[in-house]
Parts: sequence; C-alpha cells; structure tokens
Amino acid sequence: MDRDRILLTPGPLTTSLRTKLAMLRDWGSWDADFNAITARIRGQLLDVIHGSDSHVVVPLQGSGTFSVEAAVATLVPPSDRGGHVLVLDNGAYCKRFGKLSTLMGRHTTIVERAEDEPVSAEQLDVQLKKDPSITHVGLIHCETGTGVLNPLQDVSDVCKRHGKGLIIDAMSSFAAIDIDARNVQFDALIAASGKCVEGVPGMGFVFIRKAVLEACAGNSHSLAMDLFDQHAYMEKTTQWRFTPPTHVVAALAEALAQFVEEGGQPARLARYTDNYQTLIGGMGAIGFKPFLRADIQAPIIVTFHAPADPRYQFKRFYDAAKQRGFILYPGKLTKLDTFRVGCIGAIGRNEMQQAVNAVADSLREMGIADGKPAV
Amino acid sequence: MDRDRILLTPGPLTTSLRTKLAMLRDWGSWDADFNAITARIRGQLLDVIHGSDSHVVVPLQGSGTFSVEAAVATLVPPSDRGGHVLVLDNGAYCKRFGKLSTLMGRHTTIVERAEDEPVSAEQLDVQLKKDPSITHVGLIHCETGTGVLNPLQDVSDVCKRHGKGLIIDAMSSFAAIDIDARNVQFDALIAASGKCVEGVPGMGFVFIRKAVLEACAGNSHSLAMDLFDQHAYMEKTTQWRFTPPTHVVAALAEALAQFVEEGGQPARLARYTDNYQTLIGGMGAIGFKPFLRADIQAPIIVTFHAPADPRYQFKRFYDAAKQRGFILYPGKLTKLDTFRVGCIGAIGRNEMQQAVNAVADSLREMGIADGKPAV
Repeated sequence: MDRDRILLTPGPLTTSLRTKLAMLRDWGSWDADFNAITARIRGQLLDVIHGSDSHVVVPLQGSGTFSVEAAVATLVPPSDRGGHVLVLDNGAYCKRFGKLSTLMGRHTTIVERAEDEPVSAEQLDVQLKKDPSITHVGLIHCETGTGVLNPLQDVSDVCKRHGKGLIIDAMSSFAAIDIDARNVQFDALIAASGKCVEGVPGMGFVFIRKAVLEACAGNSHSLAMDLFDQHAYMEKTTQWRFTPPTHVVAALAEALAQFVEEGGQPARLARYTDNYQTLIGGMGAIGFKPFLRADIQAPIIVTFHAPADPRYQFKRFYDAAKQRGFILYPGKLTKLDTFRVGCIGAIGRNEMQQAVNAVADSLREMGIADGKPAV
Repeated sequence: MDRDRILLTPGPLTTSLRTKLAMLRDWGSWDADFNAITARIRGQLLDVIHGSDSHVVVPLQGSGTFSVEAAVATLVPPSDRGGHVLVLDNGAYCKRFGKLSTLMGRHTTIVERAEDEPVSAEQLDVQLKKDPSITHVGLIHCETGTGVLNPLQDVSDVCKRHGKGLIIDAMSSFAAIDIDARNVQFDALIAASGKCVEGVPGMGFVFIRKAVLEACAGNSHSLAMDLFDQHAYMEKTTQWRFTPPTHVVAALAEALAQFVEEGGQPARLARYTDNYQTLIGGMGAIGFKPFLRADIQAPIIVTFHAPADPRYQFKRFYDAAKQRGFILYPGKLTKLDTFRVGCIGAIGRNEMQQAVNAVADSLREMGIADGKPAV
C-alpha cells in the first residue's frame, strides 16, 4: 500500500489535491500570465490581514526562516547605525530569531521567559523604559516549539506607545488566528506558503508597513534578502527580482482561492479549533497530557508529554503511527520528553479522530497501557 | 485553447510531465522517507561532476542567486579577515556576482571584459600576479545574459597555479556542459534545480571542496545562507536545517532519475546541441543573426539581434510567438536591441523547429520580411 500519509506536522502539511494539481504546469517567470498570479496572491494576502491601506506585502523565495532573516535585515539598521532589536523569547523559534539577528550584526537583546508561559507585555514595557536604545521588538506570535499563543495585541500596544517597530513572526498563526492590521500596529509581519494558508513550502512573504518602507532602503547587507529592493523591483516590473519558485507560487494561488471559498480566516480557525478539540479530547481519553495549559494554547500545534511507561520510545511510537498513516512530529523541548501533533492542513475532524485511534493502536502495539506522563 | 506553452527561457523551463507528477504528494520534512530522497539527490548530483571523492554538495532553499550569495558568504571571509574576490565580468550575471559580494562586505575586484568575448585566463594570470591579496576568483561558466561559454579549464588552471579558491556559478551549464571535478579544481560550484537538470525552480545546490570545508566555519554573517552550518546539520541529522521545499525536492529527484536514464551529461549535451543547431539553422534561414560568434556560444541560450525592420517591437513579437505556443525571453544587453531563445528543458528538435516556424509566422503577422538586423 502506498497511500499518502496525513501530515500532523506544523508545515509542510497536508495540502488538498486541487492545490497540488496547480503544480502540473510550467510558467515563464517573465510572462504576464505568471505575473498576474503573483499580483493576485499579493492582493489576497493583504486582504487576510485587512492591510491594503497600511501595508505592502513582499514575497520571497526560500523557507519561512529566510523571510524572517530578510525582515530583520531590511527593517533593522546595522548596529553601527543604531538598530537594536529586543526579542521576546519563550521558545525555539524566538531563539532562532535572536540568533539570526545577532549573526547579521544587529544589536540584539533577548528577554527570556519560561517556555510554558506567554511572553509578557508588562515586562516589555519595563524593558523599553529601561533601555531607550531599543528600536525594534521581535515577537513570535504562535511559538511552534511548544504551541503557545503570545499576546499580540498587548505587545503591539506597548510598542506603539513607545514608538518602537514591531516585527512579528506569524509563521504558524497567519490565516488561522485573527490578525487585523487596522487594530494591531506592526512594522513587519512574516509568514510562509506552507503553513495555515495550506500551500506547499518554498516561499515566504513579509508585510511591511508603508510608513516605514522608505526608511528601509540600504539596510540590507544581503542582495537576495533585500525586501526593499524586491518590493521596488516588483512594483516597477510586476516580476520577481530573481527566479521565483513558479510551481510553489501557482500552488499558493490555488490554496488562497480555497481559503477564500472556505470563508477566510474565521472559517479556517473554526476548522482548526475543531481539529484541536477532537485531538485534545481523544488524546486526553487515553491518558495523554498536553504540555501547556488550555488558555495559552493555540489550536495549531499541541505538545504532549511522553508517556511514563518505560516501553515508550519516540522512534518506535513514530514508526507505529506512520505505519497507520499518520506522521507525528518530535518535541522541541530540551529538558522534557515530549512530542508534537499539528492540527493544521487540509484535514478535518475525521482525520484527527483517525489519528487519535492510530495513536491508541500504536500504544497497544508497544504494550503501553496509556499515555499518562510521569509529571 | 489552454495548452501548455513551450518555455524557451533559461529556467524556469519546460519540465516533463513525469517530473511534475512527482509533486502530487506531500512529504513530512522530518520523515526518513523524505530524507532518503535528499540523500539520493545529493549522491546523484555529486556523480554528475564525478565529485564524490573531492567535494560535498549542499542544497539550499531559494533561487540560484540565493545559492551564489550563500557560496560567497560561506567561502570568502569578510574583508576585515582578509577575504578578497576577483570577479571575471563579461555579462549581467557576473555583475550580479560582484554586486552581492560587495554588498555583503567582501572585498571585491571586478575585471571587466566585453560582453561578446569570453573572459581571459591570461588576463586573470596578470591580475593575480599584480595583486597577491586576492583570495578567491568568481567565474560565471555560461553567462546567461548573452549565452557565452567561459573557459573553465584555463581559469581553473590559473587559479590552481596561484593557489586561489575558484567559485564557479555553473547555473546554466551544470548537467549539460562537461564539468569533471577530477580535472577541474574549484572550491565551490553552484547550480539550481530549475535549469539543465530539468527540475522545477525553488532550490539551488553548492558543491564545496572537502579540503576547504572546515575553514568555512564562521564566515557567514547569515544564518539561512550558512552552507557550512547547513552541511554539518544535514550530515548529522540527514535533514535540512529549515523547512525544505519538499515538492521541489521530489521533482528534482524525478528529474535526476530521467537525467540518468537519458544517458547523463553527454546525452543531455547532445540533445541541447541538436536543439541549438535546429534553432540557429532555422533562424539563420529567415535572416536572424546571433549576437555571439559560434565558437564561444554555449548550446544553452542564444542571443539574437532584433530585426532592423521598424515594425519590430519586442512586446508584439513576444505576444505573437506566445499566441503560437512559445515563450521567448527578452535580451539583457543595455546597448543593443536583442532577444534570447533558450535551447534547454524537456524539449527536442521538433519543438525547436516548431518554434522557428512560429517565429517566422510571427514576423509575417507583423509585416516584417525577415529577421535581418541593422548591424
């Protein structure tokens, strides 16, 4: 049997057949028909955040991390020209943000927080009062390392009050969690094709506030990642500066059409929430315990404690679930044994219930009575 | 009629249906089945250049330019640590190489040459004698801006004699023109998925000489583009550091399988040469004149002079050919009116002859007697 498996991973994820079928065509990257697809995508992405008045959107080749790095490179001046980013850190992707910012020579301050707590807008307020040299704040909206949802509105309000530029990594939340640019002020917001818009991986995109765009000229030390240049060229020519991943772009266009047809962000959130509840209910019934408390958990990806049973081994568990048609995801916590299950992708309640059943069957095969953790 | 058009462009190009069909599946980027595909691709790419003893290959997300930038960032130390690149410049992609190197803070010297001449190994020899601070040489093997083939072996020999690291942008030549790592010494060679291997665009790859790999640690100011880090992580885990473009990777695997079945590089070169000859013969018969003399022209992409007839306009010509099913490519010369026609992709003599016929029909529609240029 060679059926496609369900990806319960935080991207790449399961996409619809319709999205994949859009890749069965080759496009000339200079051609007007292809450029029209790029233009349509850009308009639809801006619509997702109600941002067409306040923001532009700049697509970029590569994975989401390339777009995060490009956003920092383009928005934040090098340290010798006064740029200073404060990164609110409660997980692995926050740490990656801090690392790439430091590496590229941007003055970077990390404010650490426990991984099972959201970052704190109050703490940010204190930090910004203490250090006026900070110019930008980096926030991971939904920290994929654990699944925690950070308080976007509160953090944005504090940044606005202090006149600081907010850079949001919304990789795992965009298109699923409500982000309304009319209410939440930010200088940049980053997401990617292979996440909750349910396209295939291969490109990211960065929303940049129009009011700060001009000031970004010349910040980037990188040609490929200069979003100011990419935007200027695209506006002038309708084309990408360098070869676009044409099939990935075509798939994203088809994914966005389905996103709109489904009812946009509210409908997607409703489906993912249903997926999440099916998962959490089903897993709870067989003893599994989530790492986070429910009120700070996004319905995107759930970290579960590993079962206490000594017969448990992630690799065997993963293989047993895979054999049953489901791809799980390893944990990303250094101190605790965990695993993760994604609730996103072109899947619904049925797939989540089948996944729970497959997990139960996998435990049984391993001779493990239930998923109860040691803690 | 909505038939697929033939792309006579230098990538993205026309791919086979079999290659595109490989994208109809979602892969978990952490899963062993996917990692096995990555490993297989890496082995096959090394085989293309007979490089498994001397080189490693590091795939990277993004367009080919991302990989060129990553190669320079990883191989060449920043100027304050002594890195100094000399770029042999005879076209648009050479200039791009120089620009990205300069921008990222690498000491860069450009040696300019006319666009209708290959770069000169003798001139390089003189330059290297004159300036011993040069550590690396940047060469574009086939300059896609015009189509000229640069003298790889001679340049490599000069670099080897002077003990300088050679970085080759082989974007448009890899897999079509013979490059044998057993005979040609280079520190890095860069190509991409959507070129002569006939995959879809979305990733590049860089061959790095094993002997220089360790010295590359810590050179890169960029996290995403650090090929040393990407390589170390991939060797350790079998995975990509950041989300790979899974569908693009699967398509490349299928494209490489067909490359091997076709007979590898010699067979590909034979087909492209046949395409080239069909093109050049057919276009010549209706008066078109190539920009380059035949002995320095690679059978990859051909620059033609625009017809002298005042009724000629590239946009109308492009649209007329497109309506007939063929996507041409604009010229990239600043001083002369030209257009380009690619000979690469999953096409053969029939498609090239049909393209020539379509060009003739397009001229007729525009009321142009023949393709004779003014010069």
